[in-house]
Amino acid sequence: MPYELYYWPSIQGRGEFVRLALEEAGADYIDVAREPRKGVRAMQSFMDKSERPPFAPPFLKDGDVIIGQTAAILFYLGGKHGLAPGDEAGRMWMHQIQLTIADFVLEAHDTHHPISAGLYYEDQKDEAARRTQDFRDNRVPKYLAWFETILTRNPAGPAHLAGGNITYADLSLFQVIAGLAYAFPKLMKRELRNHRNVAALHKAVAERPRIKAYLESSRRIPFNESGIFRKYPELDA
Amino acid sequence: MPYELYYWPSIQGRGEFVRLALEEAGADYIDVAREPRKGVRAMQSFMDKSERPPFAPPFLKDGDVIIGQTAAILFYLGGKHGLAPGDEAGRMWMHQIQLTIADFVLEAHDTHHPISAGLYYEDQKDEAARRTQDFRDNRVPKYLAWFETILTRNPAGPAHLAGGNITYADLSLFQVIAGLAYAFPKLMKRELRNHRNVAALHKAVAERPRIKAYLESSRRIPFNESGIFRKYPELDA
Repeated sequence: MPYELYYWPSIQGRGEFVRLALEEAGADYIDVAREPRKGVRAMQSFMDKSERPPFAPPFLKDGDVIIGQTAAILFYLGGKHGLAPGDEAGRMWMHQIQLTIADFVLEAHDTHHPISAGLYYEDQKDEAARRTQDFRDNRVPKYLAWFETILTRNPAGPAHLAGGNITYADLSLFQVIAGLAYAFPKLMKRELRNHRNVAALHKAVAERPRIKAYLESSRRIPFNESGIFRKYPELDA
Repeated sequence: MPYELYYWPSIQGRGEFVRLALEEAGADYIDVAREPRKGVRAMQSFMDKSERPPFAPPFLKDGDVIIGQTAAILFYLGGKHGLAPGDEAGRMWMHQIQLTIADFVLEAHDTHHPISAGLYYEDQKDEAARRTQDFRDNRVPKYLAWFETILTRNPAGPAHLAGGNITYADLSLFQVIAGLAYAFPKLMKRELRNHRNVAALHKAVAERPRIKAYLESSRRIPFNESGIFRKYPELDA
Protein backbone atom coordinates (compact mmCIF):
# COMPACT_ATOMS: atom_id res chain seq x y z
CA MET A 1 0.00 0.00 0.00
CA PRO A 2 1.50 3.41 -0.91
CA TYR A 3 2.19 5.97 1.75
CA GLU A 4 -0.21 8.90 1.82
CA LEU A 5 1.47 12.27 2.33
CA TYR A 6 -0.80 15.16 3.30
CA TYR A 7 0.55 18.65 2.71
CA TRP A 8 -0.35 21.95 1.07
CA PRO A 9 -0.31 21.41 -2.69
CA SER A 10 1.23 24.66 -3.91
CA ILE A 11 4.40 25.03 -1.83
CA GLN A 12 7.47 22.98 -0.99
CA GLY A 13 7.22 23.98 2.67
CA ARG A 14 7.82 21.40 5.36
CA GLY A 15 6.32 18.69 3.19
CA GLU A 16 9.37 18.89 0.94
CA PHE A 17 11.61 17.32 3.57
CA VAL A 18 9.33 14.29 3.53
CA ARG A 19 9.06 14.24 -0.28
CA LEU A 20 12.86 14.18 -0.61
CA ALA A 21 13.14 11.18 1.72
CA LEU A 22 10.37 9.32 -0.12
CA GLU A 23 11.98 10.09 -3.48
CA GLU A 24 15.47 9.00 -2.39
CA ALA A 25 13.99 5.79 -0.96
CA GLY A 26 12.12 5.13 -4.20
CA ALA A 27 9.02 4.68 -2.06
CA ASP A 28 5.53 4.51 -3.51
CA TYR A 29 3.49 7.46 -2.24
CA ILE A 30 0.46 9.58 -3.00
CA ASP A 31 0.72 13.33 -2.46
CA VAL A 32 -2.93 13.45 -1.44
CA ALA A 33 -3.74 17.16 -1.53
CA ARG A 34 -2.27 17.38 -5.05
CA GLU A 35 -4.57 14.66 -6.37
CA PRO A 36 -7.31 16.06 -8.63
CA ARG A 37 -10.29 14.58 -6.82
CA LYS A 38 -8.94 14.74 -3.28
CA GLY A 39 -7.13 18.00 -2.68
CA VAL A 40 -6.99 20.15 0.41
CA ARG A 41 -10.53 19.14 1.32
CA ALA A 42 -9.43 15.55 1.96
CA MET A 43 -6.61 16.83 4.15
CA GLN A 44 -8.83 19.13 6.17
CA SER A 45 -11.50 16.49 6.57
CA PHE A 46 -8.95 14.07 7.98
CA MET A 47 -7.73 16.63 10.51
CA ASP A 48 -11.29 17.45 11.57
CA LYS A 49 -12.29 13.87 12.27
CA SER A 50 -9.22 11.95 13.38
CA GLU A 51 -8.96 10.58 16.88
CA ARG A 52 -5.35 11.74 16.67
CA PRO A 53 -5.60 14.98 14.70
CA PRO A 54 -2.30 16.54 13.64
CA PHE A 55 -1.94 20.19 14.65
CA ALA A 56 -0.85 21.06 11.11
CA PRO A 57 0.34 19.43 7.88
CA PRO A 58 2.48 17.64 6.87
CA PHE A 59 1.34 14.28 8.11
CA LEU A 60 1.88 10.80 6.74
CA LYS A 61 -0.40 7.79 6.70
CA ASP A 62 1.17 4.35 6.56
CA GLY A 63 -1.81 2.02 6.85
CA ASP A 64 -3.14 2.58 10.35
CA VAL A 65 -0.15 4.60 11.52
CA ILE A 66 -0.57 8.38 11.24
CA ILE A 67 2.40 10.61 11.96
CA GLY A 68 2.53 14.38 12.10
CA GLN A 69 5.48 16.75 12.60
CA THR A 70 8.14 16.63 9.90
CA ALA A 71 10.98 15.41 12.10
CA ALA A 72 8.84 12.59 13.50
CA ILE A 73 7.81 11.51 9.99
CA LEU A 74 11.46 11.36 8.95
CA PHE A 75 12.41 9.45 12.10
CA TYR A 76 9.79 6.87 11.12
CA LEU A 77 10.72 6.72 7.42
CA GLY A 78 14.45 6.69 8.14
CA GLY A 79 14.19 3.46 10.07
CA LYS A 80 12.04 1.78 7.42
CA HIS A 81 14.15 2.74 4.39
CA GLY A 82 17.74 2.66 5.61
CA LEU A 83 17.97 6.46 5.58
CA ALA A 84 19.22 6.61 9.18
CA PRO A 85 21.89 4.93 11.32
CA GLY A 86 21.00 1.44 12.53
CA ASP A 87 21.88 1.77 16.22
CA GLU A 88 19.78 3.57 18.83
CA ALA A 89 22.40 6.19 19.73
CA GLY A 90 22.90 6.94 16.04
CA ARG A 91 19.18 7.16 15.38
CA MET A 92 18.74 9.61 18.27
CA TRP A 93 21.72 11.66 17.10
CA MET A 94 20.21 11.94 13.64
CA HIS A 95 16.85 12.90 15.12
CA GLN A 96 18.59 15.60 17.14
CA ILE A 97 20.17 16.96 13.96
CA GLN A 98 16.77 16.94 12.24
CA LEU A 99 15.09 18.78 15.11
CA THR A 100 17.81 21.42 14.91
CA ILE A 101 17.18 21.71 11.17
CA ALA A 102 13.49 22.20 12.02
CA ASP A 103 14.43 25.07 14.33
CA PHE A 104 16.54 26.61 11.58
CA VAL A 105 13.68 26.28 9.07
CA LEU A 106 11.28 28.02 11.43
CA GLU A 107 13.75 30.87 11.86
CA ALA A 108 14.05 31.14 8.07
CA HIS A 109 10.26 31.41 7.90
CA ASP A 110 10.08 33.99 10.64
CA THR A 111 12.43 36.33 8.78
CA HIS A 112 9.48 37.37 6.60
CA HIS A 113 6.82 36.73 9.26
CA PRO A 114 8.25 37.89 12.59
CA ILE A 115 4.94 39.18 13.94
CA SER A 116 2.23 36.83 12.70
CA ALA A 117 1.80 34.05 10.17
CA GLY A 118 -1.74 35.36 9.80
CA LEU A 119 -0.63 38.72 8.37
CA TYR A 120 0.89 39.46 4.98
CA TYR A 121 4.61 40.13 4.68
CA GLU A 122 3.71 43.65 3.55
CA ASP A 123 2.09 44.24 6.95
CA GLN A 124 5.30 43.38 8.85
CA LYS A 125 8.05 44.58 6.51
CA ASP A 126 9.83 46.80 9.01
CA GLU A 127 9.98 44.07 11.62
CA ALA A 128 11.03 41.57 8.93
CA ALA A 129 13.97 43.75 7.92
CA ARG A 130 15.15 43.94 11.51
CA ARG A 131 14.71 40.25 12.21
CA THR A 132 16.39 39.26 8.95
CA GLN A 133 19.45 41.31 9.74
CA ASP A 134 19.92 39.25 12.89
CA PHE A 135 19.28 36.08 10.90
CA ARG A 136 21.96 37.01 8.36
CA ASP A 137 24.50 38.30 10.89
CA ASN A 138 24.11 35.76 13.67
CA ARG A 139 21.79 32.85 13.08
CA VAL A 140 22.84 31.60 9.63
CA PRO A 141 26.56 31.69 10.54
CA LYS A 142 25.84 29.90 13.83
CA TYR A 143 23.79 27.11 12.27
CA LEU A 144 26.14 26.63 9.33
CA ALA A 145 29.14 26.50 11.65
CA TRP A 146 27.39 23.76 13.61
CA PHE A 147 26.68 21.69 10.49
CA GLU A 148 30.26 22.21 9.32
CA THR A 149 31.53 21.04 12.72
CA ILE A 150 29.39 17.92 12.62
CA LEU A 151 30.56 17.06 9.12
CA THR A 152 34.18 17.65 10.08
CA ARG A 153 33.90 15.52 13.22
CA ASN A 154 32.06 12.63 11.55
CA PRO A 155 34.42 9.64 11.99
CA ALA A 156 33.21 8.24 8.64
CA GLY A 157 34.25 11.42 6.82
CA PRO A 158 32.77 14.81 5.95
CA ALA A 159 30.51 13.70 3.09
CA HIS A 160 27.58 12.94 5.41
CA LEU A 161 26.20 14.30 8.67
CA ALA A 162 26.37 10.86 10.31
CA GLY A 163 27.92 7.61 9.12
CA GLY A 164 29.13 6.91 5.61
CA ASN A 165 25.82 6.79 3.74
CA ILE A 166 23.06 9.11 2.67
CA THR A 167 20.47 9.83 5.37
CA TYR A 168 17.32 11.88 5.67
CA ALA A 169 19.31 14.54 7.55
CA ASP A 170 21.63 14.95 4.54
CA LEU A 171 18.58 15.38 2.31
CA SER A 172 17.10 17.93 4.69
CA LEU A 173 20.31 19.94 4.92
CA PHE A 174 20.39 19.97 1.11
CA GLN A 175 16.86 21.40 1.12
CA VAL A 176 17.70 24.11 3.65
CA ILE A 177 20.74 25.22 1.67
CA ALA A 178 18.76 25.18 -1.58
CA GLY A 179 16.06 27.29 0.03
CA LEU A 180 18.44 29.78 1.58
CA ALA A 181 20.35 30.11 -1.69
CA TYR A 182 17.04 30.94 -3.39
CA ALA A 183 15.99 33.46 -0.75
CA PHE A 184 19.36 35.01 0.11
CA PRO A 185 21.73 34.57 -2.85
CA LYS A 186 24.19 37.27 -1.73
CA LEU A 187 24.38 35.98 1.82
CA MET A 188 24.77 32.36 0.78
CA LYS A 189 27.48 33.08 -1.76
CA ARG A 190 29.58 34.33 1.14
CA GLU A 191 28.51 31.72 3.66
CA LEU A 192 29.08 28.70 1.46
CA ARG A 193 32.64 29.83 0.83
CA ASN A 194 33.20 29.62 4.59
CA HIS A 195 31.46 26.27 5.04
CA ARG A 196 32.92 24.05 2.37
CA ASN A 197 31.70 20.70 3.63
CA VAL A 198 28.15 22.02 3.79
CA ALA A 199 28.49 23.35 0.23
CA ALA A 200 29.88 20.01 -0.99
CA LEU A 201 27.04 18.07 0.64
CA HIS A 202 24.48 20.33 -1.02
CA LYS A 203 26.06 19.74 -4.41
CA ALA A 204 26.45 15.98 -3.95
CA VAL A 205 22.83 15.46 -2.93
CA ALA A 206 21.58 17.38 -5.97
CA GLU A 207 23.51 14.97 -8.18
CA ARG A 208 22.14 11.75 -6.72
CA PRO A 209 20.21 10.01 -9.52
CA ARG A 210 16.81 9.81 -7.85
CA ILE A 211 17.04 13.32 -6.40
CA LYS A 212 18.22 14.74 -9.72
CA ALA A 213 15.30 13.08 -11.53
CA TYR A 214 12.92 14.38 -8.89
CA LEU A 215 14.23 17.94 -9.03
CA GLU A 216 13.76 17.94 -12.81
CA SER A 217 10.23 16.50 -12.60
CA SER A 218 6.92 18.28 -12.23
CA ARG A 219 6.63 16.72 -8.79
CA ARG A 220 9.13 19.33 -7.54
CA ILE A 221 7.13 22.49 -6.91
CA PRO A 222 9.27 25.56 -7.68
CA PHE A 223 10.27 27.83 -4.81
CA ASN A 224 7.79 30.67 -4.57
CA GLU A 225 6.76 33.58 -2.37
CA SER A 226 4.10 31.59 -0.50
CA GLY A 227 6.59 29.14 0.98
CA ILE A 228 9.15 29.13 3.75
CA PHE A 229 12.03 30.42 1.62
CA ARG A 230 11.05 33.62 -0.18
CA LYS A 231 13.04 35.80 -2.51
CA TYR A 232 12.52 39.32 -1.20
CA PRO A 233 15.62 41.14 -2.49
CA GLU A 234 15.32 43.83 0.17
CA LEU A 235 16.02 41.19 2.84
CA ASP A 236 19.22 39.92 1.24
CA ALA A 237 22.64 41.49 1.67
CA MET B 1 24.77 5.45 37.12
CA PRO B 2 22.70 8.62 37.43
CA TYR B 3 21.59 10.54 34.35
CA GLU B 4 23.45 13.77 33.73
CA LEU B 5 21.24 16.67 32.67
CA TYR B 6 23.00 19.68 31.18
CA TYR B 7 21.08 22.94 31.18
CA TRP B 8 21.38 26.57 32.20
CA PRO B 9 21.38 26.71 36.00
CA SER B 10 19.29 29.81 36.66
CA ILE B 11 16.14 29.27 34.61
CA GLN B 12 13.47 26.62 34.16
CA GLY B 13 13.61 26.98 30.39
CA ARG B 14 13.49 23.92 28.20
CA GLY B 15 15.39 21.91 30.80
CA GLU B 16 12.33 21.99 33.01
CA PHE B 17 10.41 19.62 30.72
CA VAL B 18 13.17 17.09 31.27
CA ARG B 19 13.38 17.73 35.01
CA LEU B 20 9.65 17.10 35.41
CA ALA B 21 9.92 13.73 33.65
CA LEU B 22 12.93 12.72 35.73
CA GLU B 23 11.17 13.76 38.93
CA GLU B 24 7.92 11.94 38.11
CA ALA B 25 9.96 8.84 37.23
CA GLY B 26 11.86 9.06 40.52
CA ALA B 27 15.03 8.78 38.44
CA ASP B 28 18.47 9.46 39.84
CA TYR B 29 19.99 12.46 38.04
CA ILE B 30 22.60 15.16 38.38
CA ASP B 31 21.73 18.67 37.20
CA VAL B 32 25.31 19.20 36.11
CA ALA B 33 25.48 22.96 35.54
CA ARG B 34 23.95 23.53 38.99
CA GLU B 35 26.65 21.51 40.74
CA PRO B 36 29.09 23.75 42.67
CA ARG B 37 32.31 22.51 41.10
CA LYS B 38 31.01 21.83 37.60
CA GLY B 39 28.68 24.57 36.49
CA VAL B 40 28.21 26.07 33.08
CA ARG B 41 31.87 25.56 32.29
CA ALA B 42 31.43 21.76 32.32
CA MET B 43 28.45 22.15 29.98
CA GLN B 44 30.28 24.41 27.55
CA SER B 45 33.38 22.22 27.57
CA PHE B 46 31.29 19.19 26.64
CA MET B 47 29.69 21.04 23.74
CA ASP B 48 33.06 22.24 22.48
CA LYS B 49 34.68 18.82 22.39
CA SER B 50 32.00 16.23 21.69
CA GLU B 51 32.02 14.23 18.49
CA ARG B 52 28.26 14.79 18.55
CA PRO B 53 27.95 18.32 19.93
CA PRO B 54 24.41 19.46 20.75
CA PHE B 55 23.45 22.75 19.11
CA ALA B 56 22.17 24.04 22.46
CA PRO B 57 21.21 22.83 25.94
CA PRO B 58 19.40 20.90 27.27
CA PHE B 59 21.10 17.62 26.63
CA LEU B 60 21.16 14.39 28.59
CA LYS B 61 23.91 11.86 29.12
CA ASP B 62 22.96 8.30 29.89
CA GLY B 63 26.29 6.49 29.97
CA ASP B 64 27.54 6.65 26.41
CA VAL B 65 24.29 7.91 24.94
CA ILE B 66 24.05 11.68 24.54
CA ILE B 67 20.76 13.22 23.50
CA GLY B 68 19.99 16.83 22.70
CA GLN B 69 16.70 18.53 21.85
CA THR B 70 14.06 18.44 24.57
CA ALA B 71 11.49 16.39 22.66
CA ALA B 72 14.10 13.78 21.74
CA ILE B 73 15.23 13.51 25.37
CA LEU B 74 11.65 12.94 26.46
CA PHE B 75 11.10 10.38 23.72
CA TYR B 76 14.09 8.50 25.09
CA LEU B 77 13.15 8.82 28.77
CA GLY B 78 9.49 8.04 28.12
CA GLY B 79 10.33 4.62 26.79
CA LYS B 80 12.68 3.81 29.66
CA HIS B 81 10.39 4.91 32.50
CA GLY B 82 6.89 4.02 31.37
CA LEU B 83 6.00 7.67 30.74
CA ALA B 84 4.81 6.99 27.16
CA PRO B 85 2.50 4.53 25.41
CA GLY B 86 4.02 1.10 24.81
CA ASP B 87 3.12 0.61 21.14
CA GLU B 88 4.92 2.25 18.22
CA ALA B 89 1.91 4.19 16.92
CA GLY B 90 1.24 5.48 20.43
CA ARG B 91 4.86 6.45 20.98
CA MET B 92 4.92 8.38 17.70
CA TRP B 93 1.61 10.07 18.55
CA MET B 94 3.00 11.20 21.88
CA HIS B 95 6.17 12.44 20.21
CA GLN B 96 4.04 14.41 17.77
CA ILE B 97 2.19 16.01 20.69
CA GLN B 98 5.51 16.88 22.34
CA LEU B 99 6.91 18.44 19.16
CA THR B 100 3.78 20.58 18.94
CA ILE B 101 4.29 21.62 22.57
CA ALA B 102 7.86 22.57 21.59
CA ASP B 103 6.49 24.79 18.82
CA PHE B 104 4.10 26.41 21.30
CA VAL B 105 6.93 27.00 23.78
CA LEU B 106 9.04 28.70 21.13
CA GLU B 107 6.13 30.97 20.24
CA ALA B 108 5.73 31.84 23.93
CA HIS B 109 9.42 32.76 24.01
CA ASP B 110 9.21 34.82 20.85
CA THR B 111 6.47 37.02 22.31
CA HIS B 112 9.16 38.90 24.21
CA HIS B 113 11.94 38.27 21.68
CA PRO B 114 10.38 38.57 18.21
CA ILE B 115 13.46 40.13 16.61
CA SER B 116 16.50 38.54 18.20
CA ALA B 117 17.36 36.36 21.19
CA GLY B 118 20.62 38.30 21.25
CA LEU B 119 18.95 41.61 22.10
CA TYR B 120 17.25 42.65 25.34
CA TYR B 121 13.47 42.74 25.57
CA GLU B 122 13.75 46.49 26.04
CA ASP B 123 15.29 46.74 22.58
CA GLN B 124 12.31 45.05 20.90
CA LYS B 125 9.36 46.15 23.02
CA ASP B 126 7.29 47.56 20.19
CA GLU B 127 7.62 44.43 18.12
CA ALA B 128 6.97 42.31 21.21
CA ALA B 129 3.70 44.11 21.87
CA ARG B 130 2.56 43.46 18.32
CA ARG B 131 3.62 39.83 18.27
CA THR B 132 2.08 39.15 21.67
CA GLN B 133 -1.27 40.49 20.59
CA ASP B 134 -1.33 37.87 17.85
CA PHE B 135 -0.19 35.24 20.37
CA ARG B 136 -3.04 36.13 22.73
CA ASP B 137 -5.72 36.52 20.06
CA ASN B 138 -4.86 33.64 17.76
CA ARG B 139 -2.10 31.30 18.81
CA VAL B 140 -2.97 30.52 22.43
CA PRO B 141 -6.64 29.82 21.59
CA LYS B 142 -5.58 27.64 18.65
CA TYR B 143 -3.11 25.54 20.63
CA LEU B 144 -5.39 25.19 23.65
CA ALA B 145 -8.30 24.15 21.43
CA TRP B 146 -6.07 21.45 19.95
CA PHE B 147 -5.08 20.11 23.37
CA GLU B 148 -8.70 20.22 24.48
CA THR B 149 -9.72 18.28 21.36
CA ILE B 150 -7.08 15.62 21.97
CA LEU B 151 -8.13 15.21 25.59
CA THR B 152 -11.78 14.99 24.58
CA ARG B 153 -11.11 12.43 21.87
CA ASN B 154 -8.83 10.23 23.99
CA PRO B 155 -10.65 6.87 24.11
CA ALA B 156 -9.26 6.28 27.62
CA GLY B 157 -10.84 9.51 28.89
CA PRO B 158 -9.99 13.20 29.14
CA ALA B 159 -7.62 13.00 32.11
CA HIS B 160 -4.57 12.35 29.91
CA LEU B 161 -3.39 13.34 26.44
CA ALA B 162 -2.95 9.70 25.42
CA GLY B 163 -3.92 6.49 27.20
CA GLY B 164 -5.06 6.20 30.79
CA ASN B 165 -1.81 6.97 32.60
CA ILE B 166 0.50 9.89 33.21
CA THR B 167 2.98 10.55 30.40
CA TYR B 168 5.73 13.01 29.68
CA ALA B 169 3.35 14.93 27.42
CA ASP B 170 0.94 15.47 30.33
CA LEU B 171 3.85 16.78 32.41
CA SER B 172 4.91 19.10 29.60
CA LEU B 173 1.41 20.46 29.07
CA PHE B 174 1.26 21.14 32.81
CA GLN B 175 4.49 23.12 32.51
CA VAL B 176 3.26 25.17 29.57
CA ILE B 177 0.04 26.08 31.36
CA ALA B 178 1.96 26.94 34.55
CA GLY B 179 4.28 29.15 32.54
CA LEU B 180 1.53 30.89 30.62
CA ALA B 181 -0.45 31.47 33.81
CA TYR B 182 2.65 33.13 35.29
CA ALA B 183 3.29 35.29 32.23
CA PHE B 184 -0.26 36.06 31.16
CA PRO B 185 -2.58 35.76 34.18
CA LYS B 186 -5.43 37.75 32.65
CA LEU B 187 -5.35 35.86 29.38
CA MET B 188 -5.14 32.46 31.03
CA LYS B 189 -7.97 33.14 33.45
CA ARG B 190 -10.22 33.51 30.41
CA GLU B 191 -8.68 30.71 28.37
CA LEU B 192 -8.77 28.07 31.08
CA ARG B 193 -12.49 28.69 31.54
CA ASN B 194 -12.93 27.73 27.89
CA HIS B 195 -10.64 24.69 28.01
CA ARG B 196 -11.75 22.75 31.03
CA ASN B 197 -9.96 19.48 30.37
CA VAL B 198 -6.69 21.34 29.93
CA ALA B 199 -7.30 23.19 33.20
CA ALA B 200 -8.12 19.93 35.00
CA LEU B 201 -4.98 18.24 33.72
CA HIS B 202 -2.85 21.17 34.90
CA LYS B 203 -4.39 20.92 38.37
CA ALA B 204 -4.10 17.13 38.58
CA VAL B 205 -0.42 17.05 37.60
CA ALA B 206 0.44 19.67 40.25
CA GLU B 207 -1.11 17.39 42.87
CA ARG B 208 0.82 14.24 41.99
CA PRO B 209 2.96 13.36 45.03
CA ARG B 210 6.38 13.44 43.35
CA ILE B 211 5.58 16.56 41.31
CA LYS B 212 4.12 18.33 44.36
CA ALA B 213 7.25 17.51 46.38
CA TYR B 214 9.44 18.72 43.52
CA LEU B 215 7.52 21.98 43.06
CA GLU B 216 7.93 22.71 46.78
CA SER B 217 11.66 21.88 46.76
CA SER B 218 14.63 24.11 46.06
CA ARG B 219 15.23 22.05 42.92
CA ARG B 220 12.33 23.92 41.27
CA ILE B 221 13.79 27.22 40.07
CA PRO B 222 11.15 29.96 40.33
CA PHE B 223 9.81 31.50 37.12
CA ASN B 224 11.78 34.65 36.36
CA GLU B 225 12.35 37.25 33.67
CA SER B 226 15.33 35.44 32.14
CA GLY B 227 13.32 32.39 31.15
CA ILE B 228 10.83 31.46 28.47
CA PHE B 229 7.73 32.60 30.37
CA ARG B 230 8.14 36.18 31.56
CA LYS B 231 5.76 38.38 33.52
CA TYR B 232 5.71 41.64 31.60
CA PRO B 233 2.33 43.10 32.61
CA GLU B 234 2.22 45.30 29.51
CA LEU B 235 2.02 42.15 27.35
CA ASP B 236 -0.95 40.64 29.19
CA ALA B 237 -4.58 41.53 28.55
